Amino acid sequence: MIETLMKEIKDTYNIVFKDISLLEQAFTHSSYVNEHRHLELTDNERLEFLGDAVLELIISEYLYHHFQDLPEGKLTKLRATIVREDSLAMFAKECKFDTYVRLGKGEENSNGRTRSSLLCDLFEAFLGALFIDQGSKAANDFIYQVIIPKIESGAFSHEMDHKTALQEVLQKNGDILIEYRLVKEEGPAHERIFHVEVNAGGTLLGVGSGKSKKVAEQKAAEVALADLKKKNQC
Amino acid sequence: MIETLMKEIKDTYNIVFKDISLLEQAFTHSSYVNEHRHLELTDNERLEFLGDAVLELIISEYLYHHFQDLPEGKLTKLRATIVREDSLAMFAKECKFDTYVRLGKGEENSNGRTRSSLLCDLFEAFLGALFIDQGSKAANDFIYQVIIPKIESGAFSHEMDHKTALQEVLQKNGDILIEYRLVKEEGPAHERIFHVEVNAGGTLLGVGSGKSKKVAEQKAAEVALADLKKKNQC
Repeated sequence: MIETLMKEIKDTYNIVFKDISLLEQAFTHSSYVNEHRHLELTDNERLEFLGDAVLELIISEYLYHHFQDLPEGKLTKLRATIVREDSLAMFAKECKFDTYVRLGKGEENSNGRTRSSLLCDLFEAFLGALFIDQGSKAANDFIYQVIIPKIESGAFSHEMDHKTALQEVLQKNGDILIEYRLVKEEGPAHERIFHVEVNAGGTLLGVGSGKSKKVAEQKAAEVALADLKKKNQC
Repeated sequence: MIETLMKEIKDTYNIVFKDISLLEQAFTHSSYVNEHRHLELTDNERLEFLGDAVLELIISEYLYHHFQDLPEGKLTKLRATIVREDSLAMFAKECKFDTYVRLGKGEENSNGRTRSSLLCDLFEAFLGALFIDQGSKAANDFIYQVIIPKIESGAFSHEMDHKTALQEVLQKNGDILIEYRLVKEEGPAHERIFHVEVNAGGTLLGVGSGKSKKVAEQKAAEVALADLKKKNQC
């Protein structure tokens, strides 16, 4: 089992653990330890405690630098979405970590291997082990392979406002100038309607209207995002 | 103001910011920004978002390595105590950060300068700025100057069990062998009383009794701690 796991993470992420017992510990659930007391194993809970903090900092640093226009409240909300149980369980599955975790029989029979909380803890424990074994750069590299591309492809954009989400999708391959331009205002002062165009790299991506410039810009970004999504699916 | 602050952190922590605007931002409360809109300043809230995660990781890594016998639940509880609002506000004051934060008049008049939540955010914002300006080692060094010695001198030991707290106090200057020895058992089986001695480096530090070895050990550690405290105060 451990050999297959080692091959898997070497082939996929180019990670080679120096201390293999740390890797084994990360993949050892407490239920397995309890059923094999004679082996005197240690479960992955302390590694999860550390990995949780490692992940929080990597994601925070990325969001801080990458979303320079987002205020603290929105950064906190976005971070919570990315590091929440469901998301991390999904990443654990994508990394095939669910295949390798050692569970007790009871846990196995009650479908522990597919339980979000268990998979989330497993993902964090692996990250904690990687951080101890190889330091912060290796932990960063892993997260930049597994999680950051998902953020950049818009997997969490439902949690962002439309302008931020559009920026995220457009700038994933480098900086591109996104411009919002007021093209028309109409109606009486108390019922003014604003029309805004959004352009990126000189191409018109969408138009939106609303009772304020802000609302019209969000609308234009929403239209542009929907259109880009449609094109990518074709 | 900023010159005095720069001198203060250079003299006390040997920290010299490369980007002084980051340091200024860390000490700028949103109330000050709101009252000086023409200056187009940025408040410290995004830095606080980042600093919070930086601190969480530094403390987690310290606790992980330093309390190898504590299970995840206790590590989490201890971390929460160290990074909670009151504690960080106290550290901010010890660093004299409260003297330097720029507040709006309203905030100043309502005693914002002494408010725990404001000082806690300020401490985290400073750490975030330091992390961006000089990287994780500088942030680590600062926390190892300001917070870790407090943990090691037992400032949070009321949150630990007595054995852990005793270990913390005794091992702050390096490893020392702490031994718990069952010296006597008495009474009938259903009302057995255990007597335990705790020794460190060959010196008897305390004795404790209880209905289990575990309780007796905790009692012995409690006695030893109280005794050490008394000696340190003389």
